Amino acid sequence: MTPPEPQRAVEQLGLDDLQEVWPLLDGDDRRESLLALERSEADEFFLSLSARDQSGVLVGLPHAQARAWMRLLAPDDAADVIQGTDREHRDELLRLLDDPTRREVQGLLAYAEDDAGGLMNPRYARLRPDMSVDEAIAYLRKQAREQAETIYYAYVLDAQDRLLGVVSFRQLFSAGPAQTVSQVMNAEPVTVSEETDQEEVSRLFARHHIIAIPVVDGENRMRGIVTVNDIVDVVREEATEDIQKIGGTEALDAPYFEIGLGRMVRKRAGWLSALFLGEMLTATAMGYFEAEIARAVVLALFVPLVISSGGNSGSQATTLIIRAMALGEVRLRDWWRVVHREFLSGLGLGTVLGTIGMVRIFAWQAMFRTYGTHAVVVALTVGFSLVGVVLWGTVAGSMLPFLLRRLGFDPASASAPFVATLVDVTGLIIYFTTASLVMRGSLL
Amino acid sequence: MTPPEPQRAVEQLGLDDLQEVWPLLDGDDRRESLLALERSEADEFFLSLSARDQSGVLVGLPHAQARAWMRLLAPDDAADVIQGTDREHRDELLRLLDDPTRREVQGLLAYAEDDAGGLMNPRYARLRPDMSVDEAIAYLRKQAREQAETIYYAYVLDAQDRLLGVVSFRQLFSAGPAQTVSQVMNAEPVTVSEETDQEEVSRLFARHHIIAIPVVDGENRMRGIVTVNDIVDVVREEATEDIQKIGGTEALDAPYFEIGLGRMVRKRAGWLSALFLGEMLTATAMGYFEAEIARAVVLALFVPLVISSGGNSGSQATTLIIRAMALGEVRLRDWWRVVHREFLSGLGLGTVLGTIGMVRIFAWQAMFRTYGTHAVVVALTVGFSLVGVVLWGTVAGSMLPFLLRRLGFDPASASAPFVATLVDVTGLIIYFTTASLVMRGSLL
Repeated sequence: MTPPEPQRAVEQLGLDDLQEVWPLLDGDDRRESLLALERSEADEFFLSLSARDQSGVLVGLPHAQARAWMRLLAPDDAADVIQGTDREHRDELLRLLDDPTRREVQGLLAYAEDDAGGLMNPRYARLRPDMSVDEAIAYLRKQAREQAETIYYAYVLDAQDRLLGVVSFRQLFSAGPAQTVSQVMNAEPVTVSEETDQEEVSRLFARHHIIAIPVVDGENRMRGIVTVNDIVDVVREEATEDIQKIGGTEALDAPYFEIGLGRMVRKRAGWLSALFLGEMLTATAMGYFEAEIARAVVLALFVPLVISSGGNSGSQATTLIIRAMALGEVRLRDWWRVVHREFLSGLGLGTVLGTIGMVRIFAWQAMFRTYGTHAVVVALTVGFSLVGVVLWGTVAGSMLPFLLRRLGFDPASASAPFVATLVDVTGLIIYFTTASLVMRGSLL
Repeated sequence: MTPPEPQRAVEQLGLDDLQEVWPLLDGDDRRESLLALERSEADEFFLSLSARDQSGVLVGLPHAQARAWMRLLAPDDAADVIQGTDREHRDELLRLLDDPTRREVQGLLAYAEDDAGGLMNPRYARLRPDMSVDEAIAYLRKQAREQAETIYYAYVLDAQDRLLGVVSFRQLFSAGPAQTVSQVMNAEPVTVSEETDQEEVSRLFARHHIIAIPVVDGENRMRGIVTVNDIVDVVREEATEDIQKIGGTEALDAPYFEIGLGRMVRKRAGWLSALFLGEMLTATAMGYFEAEIARAVVLALFVPLVISSGGNSGSQATTLIIRAMALGEVRLRDWWRVVHREFLSGLGLGTVLGTIGMVRIFAWQAMFRTYGTHAVVVALTVGFSLVGVVLWGTVAGSMLPFLLRRLGFDPASASAPFVATLVDVTGLIIYFTTASLVMRGSLL
């Protein structure tokens, strides 16, 4: 009996096993195990990969196989792969394409990745308005056989490629065979321009429940289509970016385990250091109140409680507004309505926390006599400060995304830690000012 | 000249105006302005609304119009509308449907909203395996005319309704007319069961770039389809829930401006109060170190800086892991790899912040002699504490989502404020313990 050969292990992986271990494999192992699959399985697996994984596999693959897989990709997907490849390998991959596709892909590479132009597929099914329904079906059948493109909607163009209307397969199929395409088509389709932001495109899909949106230029000439499948990825990526920013990191732009440790630390250290520099102001602010703390050390005990309550209520407000903005529920000009709402919310939340805080102090006083003769002033200081700090945290947290968007930044950069830091510094000032008002003549 | 009648203002709104002001209108105004639109525009507008808005419009509408609009909805959408309606009005809406559709909808209402069964449409195009391609196309054309359903894929079923394969329109169209359906179809389609969670369904769409997934029961009998359009909404809603939880709120389940102020405050007060109770431990912990603070007030000055650095690094780590889990990049059994990575990240980040902190203290000392004769011990205490607190915050923040998932909770509940609170309390202990080690014999 020959023992199993360990160096073959990777090659013998089945499709399911490969999906399982894929994230753990390096580039060479990935290429090797893909090539060990049956041809049709390998093709399918390759197509199911993300653009960055496809790029990683293609660079370093034998030329014939790389060419076969590059040519399996739709032009917009090929453009994504090339965009995800190091500059020195881009030309190499572009040369694998046939001439007309390469020109299409080069055209797509000129668009910003986040615009409709960067998402669109330049291939789509087209019809003329005066065709009969039967002619249209026969013509589409021929196109389906010859070209790999989305054919669930066909786009009706005039001689100058201007978009006249859209007709779905459903509509063609359910129409009488002798009707013309222009009688059946929807003559007022939803369209976007090449510069429409992908967030806006995804909102149109959500609103209209369609499978593809045509992209037209300034003269209403058809440039391509964006499909709903592209949009699932977009919605997911945008949410990932927003969540990472809200957590106080730069967007990673790669799966957690695939990003190098050094790069990960750098992406996190930037924001963390910036927040740290901001938070240093707390030490400065506390320095101004050093004399008060020396006289009434009890004040210091509640500092973390008071300022973190401001930070927490600010985090709530800012994430609610960031998300509502991303979903289009709240627009820049709604800021005044938001201030109004958040002022009332903050007052309510502050009252709840202030009450709990005062109850806690009186309870400890009753049980342990923790605060000696000063329980009432301590309780009042903490209670009033909490109302002020939570109110301020809520209003500041809700306004920060508006301010950032107004200044042209991403509102999601108003991360929970950013708001917490901002509110910590001002919270200290609110707390010690309240203390000096309430405690004047007793403790201070 | 007659002056314009102000009470007509709402009725005269065009389609675009209506979209603009829609969020601001109450139920009566919404119904009134919809009914004032042209019929086809009103239908289109109604279909573009969210299920909760549709429900709000339908209840209170004249019977004939309510019936017409209920019957425009696909069964899965009708089920969503009914699920979003108060219990007392549900039967009223159900009775508007025709008998077979009502039975379909009642079947769908039995599924959990978050499962594939709760998303699926029980209507789909079906074919028999022995049909010729030409017969299949003619048959689908007839079905398209008679029924309102997704026809971009047709499902090939045996006599017991078991799923044999899937054939796309593309495949039918590009096949030779005399081939049989079973020769053309994909015999190993991706399927889900009725109980598959919607997150898992959305991952399958992202991976396979398909437009619909068939839902089958335990015996491989076809129950319905989930379309990619449903999934765009799912991905969006799941991200919204996660973001709201990360921000430390209960999921709102409604657009920002549509939720009543009282309900909004209650949704936020719950978590905020829980966090506040946790944060009270900081006052208790500080109490243990009251004597140290009295002796070295300078210690109190750096409390917010040190503990917030732990909170910020914890927020980063927890949001990165929550998102990576939601995307399926990190699984429960990866926890050990994550600990390893986050330990190294935390050490790196802590060293960066500790160094900045020490530089800051020496700089202030050089410029203002802020710390008298104790600059070195203060700097060492702050520096070492920062390394410890950031390391602890990073590791604890990254492990909390694992712990929550292991216990059966949503990992996204490991919100940034939750982690910050957890780390604040332990951070204080790390800080004062470091101080008592470093300062023994000098300040303490």
